[in-house]
Amino acid sequence: MLDREGASALQYDVTIGYEPLRKKVADRMRNIYKIDCTSDDILITSGSQQGLEFSGKIFVNEGDTVLCESPTYLGALTAFNVYGPNYIDIPTDDQGIIPSELEKILEAGHKIKYIYVIPDFQNPSGVSWSLERRHKFMELVERYEIPVLEDNPYGDLRFEGEILPSLKSMDKKGLVIFLGTFSKIFCPGFRVGWVIAKPEILDAYVKIKQGADLQTSSIGQREINRFFEMYSIDEHIAKIKEVYTKRRDIMMSTIDKHMPAGVKYNKPEGGMFLWLELPLTMNARDIFEEAVRQNVAFVPGDPFFAKEKKTNFMRLNFSAMPEDKIEEGIIRLANVMKQIYK
Amino acid sequence: MLDREGASALQYDVTIGYEPLRKKVADRMRNIYKIDCTSDDILITSGSQQGLEFSGKIFVNEGDTVLCESPTYLGALTAFNVYGPNYIDIPTDDQGIIPSELEKILEAGHKIKYIYVIPDFQNPSGVSWSLERRHKFMELVERYEIPVLEDNPYGDLRFEGEILPSLKSMDKKGLVIFLGTFSKIFCPGFRVGWVIAKPEILDAYVKIKQGADLQTSSIGQREINRFFEMYSIDEHIAKIKEVYTKRRDIMMSTIDKHMPAGVKYNKPEGGMFLWLELPLTMNARDIFEEAVRQNVAFVPGDPFFAKEKKTNFMRLNFSAMPEDKIEEGIIRLANVMKQIYK
Repeated sequence: MLDREGASALQYDVTIGYEPLRKKVADRMRNIYKIDCTSDDILITSGSQQGLEFSGKIFVNEGDTVLCESPTYLGALTAFNVYGPNYIDIPTDDQGIIPSELEKILEAGHKIKYIYVIPDFQNPSGVSWSLERRHKFMELVERYEIPVLEDNPYGDLRFEGEILPSLKSMDKKGLVIFLGTFSKIFCPGFRVGWVIAKPEILDAYVKIKQGADLQTSSIGQREINRFFEMYSIDEHIAKIKEVYTKRRDIMMSTIDKHMPAGVKYNKPEGGMFLWLELPLTMNARDIFEEAVRQNVAFVPGDPFFAKEKKTNFMRLNFSAMPEDKIEEGIIRLANVMKQIYK
Repeated sequence: MLDREGASALQYDVTIGYEPLRKKVADRMRNIYKIDCTSDDILITSGSQQGLEFSGKIFVNEGDTVLCESPTYLGALTAFNVYGPNYIDIPTDDQGIIPSELEKILEAGHKIKYIYVIPDFQNPSGVSWSLERRHKFMELVERYEIPVLEDNPYGDLRFEGEILPSLKSMDKKGLVIFLGTFSKIFCPGFRVGWVIAKPEILDAYVKIKQGADLQTSSIGQREINRFFEMYSIDEHIAKIKEVYTKRRDIMMSTIDKHMPAGVKYNKPEGGMFLWLELPLTMNARDIFEEAVRQNVAFVPGDPFFAKEKKTNFMRLNFSAMPEDKIEEGIIRLANVMKQIYK
């Protein structure tokens, strides 16, 4: 990079991001998520976390209402919380948000700033919304004209079936703001993500970006762009999906074999997480304390609930460890649970 | 970097920043700016712009009072404005902030959230505060216990005399938050800066950073760290200072020779900017419009004033262009001024 274009890679660049990279992102978003967009519709951010934080800053004032899935991504709550929203949980099941429940909330007439959702392999639940739910959701938000924040870090990591169209691809009124990132399909260390939105909204994000950090790393953006030119990201994704599928499978089979009765989960068709529902008698924090002593970690489920903090859930990550460690870790965790809840 | 430590360079890292880099920053801040600090006192940010924005987020609510120099850095105003502060201008002269004027403002009993200052080669004025003014300023803020945001992007670029101790080095009560950056002494494309503050305040910045973008680029921080290990940043700074000194000198001598009578400036002892005061009959925006048509650009002075927007100032940058272009540009600009104000 320094040899080829050192002078520009080390200099200031435009706030919206490096044009060749934005073009590659747009092409990919059109092909994979069927989003009708060009590079002009894309702002490069410092990870999608920055897109979340900007959303809070742009839309939320103290006490404003924000809707989110229950459970939802805790990093999004951290980003939004600075601006003091009042959350309403939308009940979900293994197909995603339950439209009739969402409709009840919308009918109640709250002044809703946006609905935050992760329709693909949700963090923490692993749930991917069915196509029918996606359409019903979009019908509802279009009827009520509520902005939607569609966070999609894991969508490419589908192990089975076809990638479903994004909410943004069904967005006829420009209500959906789509957040993407290279962190889960390439690498997180660069801190490069993007926002896709209609021009008036994207302009607001660009202005906020200008004040927040001027721009994302010039050299980092060019390095990722160059990777796309030299290698196939799809080959890379195929490789990690193969690895993650095996890791998911060993995690599920070990849970089935060793965990106490009453522990439930839905098989995720992709992503990185298994979301365990424990019997109501169990408390994930108590298990966590003892598990850490035995060198196994997980994330207790309660911080993933915006309002009603349930204590009988845990999020397990299957992407980061080799199969033998996953097996060993789950066995240890199962033993901790059996030991505490004899 | 990829060969040596690719795995960690491409992965997530801690929010506070890469320890070896924080250590090098701390060492440098102790040596050059006499700041009593270790790596624990340093948060790596995505440029010092991010430190400015976080300061607004942490301290300012709608209508809160913020004091700043008049003029002051417009990028800081952009960052703070999101949070709706009410600014009070502190009058300045060629020695920096005028202590008696500051005292009047402090006596008036406003609830001041912080004072934002650039004591070294200020952007846009080029003024560097005298040692006496620094001491008087710190006496005042300690008496009234007002937090200070000390922004120091240009301090190392001193062409003449000795680098003066920072306000932070005189800070007995932990009131000063110091912002630094690699953008002006190394390169801006990496977007790497830092915040130094006492632990309670630094913790607030770290929490905000976590929500804002998790961390600054892992690979970017390591690349800069590696540069520090392989090369001498001081040799690099010596080199650019030599270049910038010549550029400043040719800019000043060309102004003296060609600009209309009544145009004034103070000779900056470092930094990147000359701040021209025009006769009151002239308007920098009018000059700008015609100058751009003749392919010379500068920044009209009015956006650098937080409250009272004066129209007879312009900021000239002398660091970015070779000497012959500076000479040519100033001659063209002088001709535009003579043409408009015959």
